[in-house]
Amino acid sequence: MSTTQMKAAKQNKVTSQMKQVATRENVDEDVIRRGVATGTIVIPCNIHHSSLIPHGIGSSLQTKINVNIGTSKDCADTVLEMQKAHLAMKLKVESIMDLSSFGDTQSFRKELVQRSTSMIGTVPIYDAIVRLQKPLADIRAQDWLQVLRIHSEDGIDFVTLHCGMNKNTASRMKQANRCTNIVSRGGAIMFAWMELTGNENPFFEHFDEVLDICAENDMTLSLGDACRPGSIEDSGDVPQLEELIVLSELTQKAWKKNIQVIIEGPGHVPINQIAEHMEMQKILCKGAPYYVLGPLVTDIAPGYDHITAAIGGAIAASHGAAFLCYVTPAEHLRLPTLDDVKEGIIASKIAAHTADIANNRSGAIQWDHEMSTCRKNLDWEGMFRNAIDPEKARLYRKESKLLDEQRCTMCGEMCAIRTINQVLQNEEPDYINYNKEN
Amino acid sequence: MSTTQMKAAKQNKVTSQMKQVATRENVDEDVIRRGVATGTIVIPCNIHHSSLIPHGIGSSLQTKINVNIGTSKDCADTVLEMQKAHLAMKLKVESIMDLSSFGDTQSFRKELVQRSTSMIGTVPIYDAIVRLQKPLADIRAQDWLQVLRIHSEDGIDFVTLHCGMNKNTASRMKQANRCTNIVSRGGAIMFAWMELTGNENPFFEHFDEVLDICAENDMTLSLGDACRPGSIEDSGDVPQLEELIVLSELTQKAWKKNIQVIIEGPGHVPINQIAEHMEMQKILCKGAPYYVLGPLVTDIAPGYDHITAAIGGAIAASHGAAFLCYVTPAEHLRLPTLDDVKEGIIASKIAAHTADIANNRSGAIQWDHEMSTCRKNLDWEGMFRNAIDPEKARLYRKESKLLDEQRCTMCGEMCAIRTINQVLQNEEPDYINYNKEN
Repeated sequence: MSTTQMKAAKQNKVTSQMKQVATRENVDEDVIRRGVATGTIVIPCNIHHSSLIPHGIGSSLQTKINVNIGTSKDCADTVLEMQKAHLAMKLKVESIMDLSSFGDTQSFRKELVQRSTSMIGTVPIYDAIVRLQKPLADIRAQDWLQVLRIHSEDGIDFVTLHCGMNKNTASRMKQANRCTNIVSRGGAIMFAWMELTGNENPFFEHFDEVLDICAENDMTLSLGDACRPGSIEDSGDVPQLEELIVLSELTQKAWKKNIQVIIEGPGHVPINQIAEHMEMQKILCKGAPYYVLGPLVTDIAPGYDHITAAIGGAIAASHGAAFLCYVTPAEHLRLPTLDDVKEGIIASKIAAHTADIANNRSGAIQWDHEMSTCRKNLDWEGMFRNAIDPEKARLYRKESKLLDEQRCTMCGEMCAIRTINQVLQNEEPDYINYNKEN
Repeated sequence: MSTTQMKAAKQNKVTSQMKQVATRENVDEDVIRRGVATGTIVIPCNIHHSSLIPHGIGSSLQTKINVNIGTSKDCADTVLEMQKAHLAMKLKVESIMDLSSFGDTQSFRKELVQRSTSMIGTVPIYDAIVRLQKPLADIRAQDWLQVLRIHSEDGIDFVTLHCGMNKNTASRMKQANRCTNIVSRGGAIMFAWMELTGNENPFFEHFDEVLDICAENDMTLSLGDACRPGSIEDSGDVPQLEELIVLSELTQKAWKKNIQVIIEGPGHVPINQIAEHMEMQKILCKGAPYYVLGPLVTDIAPGYDHITAAIGGAIAASHGAAFLCYVTPAEHLRLPTLDDVKEGIIASKIAAHTADIANNRSGAIQWDHEMSTCRKNLDWEGMFRNAIDPEKARLYRKESKLLDEQRCTMCGEMCAIRTINQVLQNEEPDYINYNKEN
C-alpha cells in the first residue's frame, strides 16, 4: 500500500504538496504538516492526478470553493459540461465535482482528471446506477465498492460517500416527519437500496474496505450528509444530528488508517443557526474540515439561490467552514447554463473572500485596501483590475453614458469622493450654476 | 403645531396608522403604540402624504427595505426614475428615497408623493445645491433649513440629515487618515460647506429648529452617517463611532420633542464586525431603529454589490437592524437601470426575509414551509406561486428542455425527492435500464 499525505505528515514528513500549499497560503510548512497530521487540513491529491495543482482545505487556510458539473439523463451534453470545467479553472476555482449521472461517465471523468488543474471530486453512488445497469434491488454490496475502486483508479481526488445513512439514521429519518425527507441524491439512492434489500449501508458496513480502497491512491473521503436539511423547517433536527454523530465516529476510524476526511454539511439552515452548526461540527468532528452545501438561508428564492447560498456560505465560512459548494441561480430549477455557472462561482467566491477578511487570511484585507485606494483616487482602470469580475464591472460602466471620464452616472458632479478630494486639496467644489445644462 | 405619532403614542392614543401596522404585522396594537412612544418603532407618515400605506419600522416588526431612485446631472431621465418607483411599489417595497440631484426636483418629488403608496424619503442637502443656485460658500444656514421646510411641506415622510457631521466629527475625520475619507454624498457636501465657511453644521447648530420643522407635518428624522465607512479598512474607526455618539445624543433631543428618529448606519463592514456594530447602536441609541446601507462585506465586487449587501444586510437585520437600504449590481459603477433595480430589490428582500426567519417574525417561516411542501410534492405551480420572483423561476424552468413535467434537468430521473416519494410509497425506483436512451 502506498503512503498517504496524512501518513507522511504523522511521520513528520513535509511532502511537496504540503510545501506548495504553504507557499500559496503564506503559512509555515509545519503548520500545514501538523494540520494534515491531525486532520484539520486536507490536501486531496490522488496519486494518479498528475495535472493537479494541490490545494489545502481547512483550519487557518483560505476558504475554498467547489463547482459542480456533470451530465444528467435529461441534459447530457458532455461538451457543455467540459466547458463549465474550463470556466471554473479559468476563474481559479480550487475544486470541481463531476456529478455526471448519464452517458459514458468514465470517459468523461478520465478526460476531466487529465485536463484539470483543480482537484476533482465525484459521487460514486450515482455512477453505480449508471454503470451497473441492474434493478436497484439487485445491486450487491461488492458492486458498490467496485465502483468506488474504479473512481480511485481513475485519479479522483475526493469522493462523497453517504456512509452515515445507516439503518439507525434511516429509521430516525422515517420517524422524524420531515418536511422534505431526503434531498441528497446519493443519500436517497442509498436509503432506497437499504429499504429494498433490508441490508445495511455497504459503505458503513464495509468501512474498513472503503478506507483500504482510499489508501491505495490516497483518495480523500468526503463523508456525505444524506440527511442534510432540504428546507428551513428540517434544519437541526434529529436525523441531521444523528448522521453527523456517525460521521464523527467514522472520521476517527479513517484518521487511524491515515485517510484524509472532509465532512459534508447542510443544506438549508436559518441564519440564526449557522454559527452554532459550525461550532458543533468542529467540536464533534475534532476539527475535520467542513464542506457546506450553501447553506441556503431560505427556501423561497428559486432563481436567486446563488444569493441565498452566498449569505449562508459567508456566515458559515466566517465561523469555520473551510469549503463552500457553489450554488447557481438555476438551483431547484434546472441544470445550470454556462452563465449560471459563472454567476454561481462569483457569488461563492464573494462569500469565501468575505469570510477570509473576517478570518484575516493572507492577502484578503490587502485586496480590499487596493480596491478602495483606487476608488479614492477615482482610478477606474485600477478598480477594474481589482474587481472580482473585471469584465462585468467594465461592461456596466461602458453601458452608461459618461459625461466625464472621472465620475460615474450615479452621483455625477455631486460625487462624494470628488467633493472631498477637492476640499482636502483646498479647491472649492464647483457647484456654481450646478443646475444648468452642460 | 399639529400632533405627531410619537406624541399620540406617549398620550396612550392608538392612531389609525398604528392600527394598520398592528394588523399587517400581526402584533398587538399596544406593542406598536409602546414602540412608537419609546422610539423603538417609527411610522414615517407625513400628514400631507395621503396615498401612503403606513408601515412600521423597528423592534419586533418585519424588516423593511428602501429603494433609492432619482436623477443625477449625468443621467436625468425622470420618466425612467418614475418607472423605478412603480416597479418598487409593484414589488411591495415599503420605502422609496428620492435622491434626485438634478433638474426640476420639486415637481418630480411632488408627483412621487402623490402617486406613492410607499413612504418617501429624501436628502434635502442635495436638493439645496440644485435649488439654491449659489456657490457653496454663499449658502447660509437658513437656506439649508428652508429647503428642509419645503420637503416637509411637500409631504416627505422622512428626511436624511447629516446632523452628526459637526466640527468635532469633521476634525476627527481629518485626523483619522482614512482609506476613503467620506463617501456619503450629503456628508461630503456638508463637510465641504463647513470647511469653506468655517461655520458649524446648520442642522446640528439649529437642531431645535430642525425638530420644529419636522413636527409641523410629522416628518421623521433619519440621522445620516456622513462618516459611514466607505471601505472595509475604515470600518469601526473613530469618526464613525464619534458620529454615532453625536447621533445618539440628538436622538434623545428629538424624542423629547416627539419627533420620530431613524439612525443611519454603515456602509462597508467586515462580517466579523456586523453583529457588534448592531448591538452597539442598539445600546447607545436606546433602541432607535437602525437603517443600514448594506452593509457591504467587501469592497472588491463591483457588479455584484447586491450580493455583498445581501450578505451584510441579512446578518445586520438578524442582529437587530430594522431597515435595509437596497443596493443594486450597479453600485459603484453607474445609476441603475430598471433591471438593476429589480435585482437589487429581490436581493434586499431575500436579506430581509432571511432575518425575519431568524427573528421569527409573523408569517416568515410559514412561507418557507409552504414552498418546501410544494417541493416535496413536485408541485411546480405551487413552487412558482411561492417564489420570491415567480417570473424568473418560471423562465428558468421554461428555458430548459424538460423530458418529464414532474422532474427538472438537474437530476432528471435520479431526483432525490422522486426517489424518496417512490420508496415511501413502497414503489421501486425505476432505475432499470437507466443508462439507455429514452
